[in-house]
Amino acid sequence: MGEVVAGARGRGTEDVRRHNLAALLGLVHAGGATTRAEVTRQLELNRSTIGGLVGTLVEAGLVVERLPAADATSGRVGRPSLEVRAREGGAEVLAGYVDVHELQVLRVGLGGTVAGRRTIALASPPDPETAADLFADTAADLLAVGPPDVVVGVGLAVPGTVRTEDGSVAYAPNLGWDDAPFGDRAAKSLTERTGRRVRVDVANDADLGLLAEHRRGAAVGLTDVVYLCGTYGLGGGVLTGGHPLTGKRGFAGEVGHMGVDPDGRPCRCGSRGCWESETLASAWAQPFDLDENAADIVDLVLQRLGSGGVVSRRTRDKLSRAFARGLANMVHLFDPQAIVLGDGLWRDLWPALADDVLPWVDRFVMPAMRAGVEVRGSALGRDSTVLGAAELAFAPLLDDPLGVLAGQASSQSPARSS
Amino acid sequence: MGEVVAGARGRGTEDVRRHNLAALLGLVHAGGATTRAEVTRQLELNRSTIGGLVGTLVEAGLVVERLPAADATSGRVGRPSLEVRAREGGAEVLAGYVDVHELQVLRVGLGGTVAGRRTIALASPPDPETAADLFADTAADLLAVGPPDVVVGVGLAVPGTVRTEDGSVAYAPNLGWDDAPFGDRAAKSLTERTGRRVRVDVANDADLGLLAEHRRGAAVGLTDVVYLCGTYGLGGGVLTGGHPLTGKRGFAGEVGHMGVDPDGRPCRCGSRGCWESETLASAWAQPFDLDENAADIVDLVLQRLGSGGVVSRRTRDKLSRAFARGLANMVHLFDPQAIVLGDGLWRDLWPALADDVLPWVDRFVMPAMRAGVEVRGSALGRDSTVLGAAELAFAPLLDDPLGVLAGQASSQSPARSS
Repeated sequence: MGEVVAGARGRGTEDVRRHNLAALLGLVHAGGATTRAEVTRQLELNRSTIGGLVGTLVEAGLVVERLPAADATSGRVGRPSLEVRAREGGAEVLAGYVDVHELQVLRVGLGGTVAGRRTIALASPPDPETAADLFADTAADLLAVGPPDVVVGVGLAVPGTVRTEDGSVAYAPNLGWDDAPFGDRAAKSLTERTGRRVRVDVANDADLGLLAEHRRGAAVGLTDVVYLCGTYGLGGGVLTGGHPLTGKRGFAGEVGHMGVDPDGRPCRCGSRGCWESETLASAWAQPFDLDENAADIVDLVLQRLGSGGVVSRRTRDKLSRAFARGLANMVHLFDPQAIVLGDGLWRDLWPALADDVLPWVDRFVMPAMRAGVEVRGSALGRDSTVLGAAELAFAPLLDDPLGVLAGQASSQSPARSS
Repeated sequence: MGEVVAGARGRGTEDVRRHNLAALLGLVHAGGATTRAEVTRQLELNRSTIGGLVGTLVEAGLVVERLPAADATSGRVGRPSLEVRAREGGAEVLAGYVDVHELQVLRVGLGGTVAGRRTIALASPPDPETAADLFADTAADLLAVGPPDVVVGVGLAVPGTVRTEDGSVAYAPNLGWDDAPFGDRAAKSLTERTGRRVRVDVANDADLGLLAEHRRGAAVGLTDVVYLCGTYGLGGGVLTGGHPLTGKRGFAGEVGHMGVDPDGRPCRCGSRGCWESETLASAWAQPFDLDENAADIVDLVLQRLGSGGVVSRRTRDKLSRAFARGLANMVHLFDPQAIVLGDGLWRDLWPALADDVLPWVDRFVMPAMRAGVEVRGSALGRDSTVLGAAELAFAPLLDDPLGVLAGQASSQSPARSS
């Protein structure tokens, strides 16, 4: 299954070299910096091979080497190991997150450094063309200040189901998008504004939040995780056995539209009684009303909870039970090590509701499965999703550093300085 | 990730040889028989290497070579390719399936041939010790008739959550088992009765049904599948991106205990309103009553459905809607290519209910996700689960043929004839 069998299929030194360069760059990217000694240990290669690989990445403009800062070496004996770190202004990506009320745009360098940031408030959910053009405008502005040598990719997050095959948005109920070629439009628009031709990848917001938390946040080192993202809707990203849950077309993990109540409220997806509508809409007055002035759904829920009185107590009970039921389902379905709550859920909703929710979770989940499952908060806060979009954009470079650079060299007009 | 990097880690010809032997044996096992030409094509190895590998497996007593039957070669030009097939009476496994009302025991040969079969009716759910001993007694009887050279493993299926780590049954509500070291007892009991020391693996019944359907049944070639097993309870096995969904401890995929109705009936798992209890118990009279004479839950449901009258119509509607809601959730959560219904669900329940269920599924699932998801029936019928247990038992041999045989040679008293 995917193994390289030496000799059997004519795979040779080129594959090995690509694999090793990718592994080395992956270490630098994950940590921001590393040392030759650490790389030698982790990759189990000899020092001269490591030297050659580092040299190649230096020549490609991706990393730099330097002596570590004095305080890191004081008291040690012998020559300190050279530090290998991502070269600032070398390879960068652009990342965007379109949600109902705002657009986040980031410039992120190799190693995860944020090189530029813009957040645009939106008066109403944008259509796909407007969102793509606004992203391109904003990205062009960000790139104008100290542009990087090369933009190796663009990652875009949307609250909806995305077709893995072509990056089109199949359905984003909270944006009102249906079968939208959002990625294509963003690529075209970005080229018009910057002259750069860059690969654009699109993915579901919660899947990307999970990706970022897994690389740099609350889920580092875990193999089985459910990440929940509550902004305007309720999205889920699932890691199972170390693999992201995608399903056949990339649509899997729509946990917000898991039906939990046959007599529940109508949901914006067209069904009723979904976890999303029962958890979040239960705090809303009937009739169901899309309040465009609310910052996000968690704020709305909290406004209702905070209003006091009889309705509030009933609302709190119903909300707690519905939220707990969905959490219990996550445990029964995915047997995770942890459920990671995204920023708004963790920062605002959980402190207000945890004492009500947790006893229900204990009651709903089979005891044998409940033990050892932790509910924890995002470590990246509001940035989880957009940082995940950046990781998505870096993925091809991290798989084949020289191949991606070779492909980019011919497609971006700004000359790369060496 | 898991790739063998030639030269970099000292992996050498031994690894390659093991890998190739395993691949060859896998082809023979999956098809029952293959040809040298087919193996050469599929493994992309040269003919002399294939010859050496086949020779090794022949010598190990696992396969035989022969000229294909005349009718298969008539009209062809040139020397026919030698057929390679599993050697009858060579390596076998024992498989067992403990459910509420019966115990199935199979002897299965390499290539999937059933070499012996026994089904024992149970008056009531057995305790773990009784079940293990009854399995061992029955297996010993089956082995007494023309015993194989070697029993390479035992696979056991139970309707419950199984700890991957040690094969103990964490919780099987319908059997009333709680933290039961079932596999250990079965291994000990089998050794007492047969003198053979054999590795015993235990797994969830629906997970094993999926494994069998994926290897030889309705899910061959698919990467994303939900398999539903409805006997006394409602179990699920999920394949996602080509990997079985297991979760951290092996408990994942408890789809029957996904909560779908906050005001639903009590479930045997201790919660209420689970998909299992809403779908299956909705056909039962209240108060909830465990009828030990019913063959399985699907029979019970059908008895109720067949009883006619006002109650039956209401029951049918409620059952259809609840079943559809769970199916819709499977689509939203796993984005599968197909939902495969196990024997009883497909043979009995689906013909009676499909016309009621499918319109609800269409209504509950987001249109973008509904298209292209097929509901189909098991191809292995009542044998899915126990054949999956056999596949579980074969897995170590298929991973490292010579290694497993070497380990077995010292632990089984019957001498192997060559």
